[in-house]
Amino acid sequence: MKARITVTLKNGVLDPQGKAIEHALSGLGFDGVGQVRQGKVFDIELDGTDKAKAEADLKAMCDKLLANTVIENYAVEIA
Amino acid sequence: MKARITVTLKNGVLDPQGKAIEHALSGLGFDGVGQVRQGKVFDIELDGTDKAKAEADLKAMCDKLLANTVIENYAVEIA
Repeated sequence: MKARITVTLKNGVLDPQGKAIEHALSGLGFDGVGQVRQGKVFDIELDGTDKAKAEADLKAMCDKLLANTVIENYAVEIA
Repeated sequence: MKARITVTLKNGVLDPQGKAIEHALSGLGFDGVGQVRQGKVFDIELDGTDKAKAEADLKAMCDKLLANTVIENYAVEIA
């Protein structure tokens, strides 16, 4: 089973990397670019076919390791 | 208009960060975790309502700045 976890910064949390990309894009001549926010994505292969268990496991992985839930949100998608 | 760009490593490109996460997850007691690959996600706000132009712009941004197309793939999604 394949899953994708997307970790993004919560609203209101400063994102200097996103800001730098914003400036770089406007420096390259792209007009009309508003806010840019950068996040992380994890593609994970899991054994087993139990979707409910997989989703619970993936959420536990996010809480324990993959995301800092103080400043980040995560989303779990199972393919 | 909001768009999300997902940049992932091409198959066959080594991903030491993903490997480290794999080991950390099995160290935390998560069984049945296969390959883990890490990528990046960019949430971009764009002015204008022309989806075709937005998609062309976003692809140009990936080619010029956001992705290293030698080793990375990108996907553009417009919300």
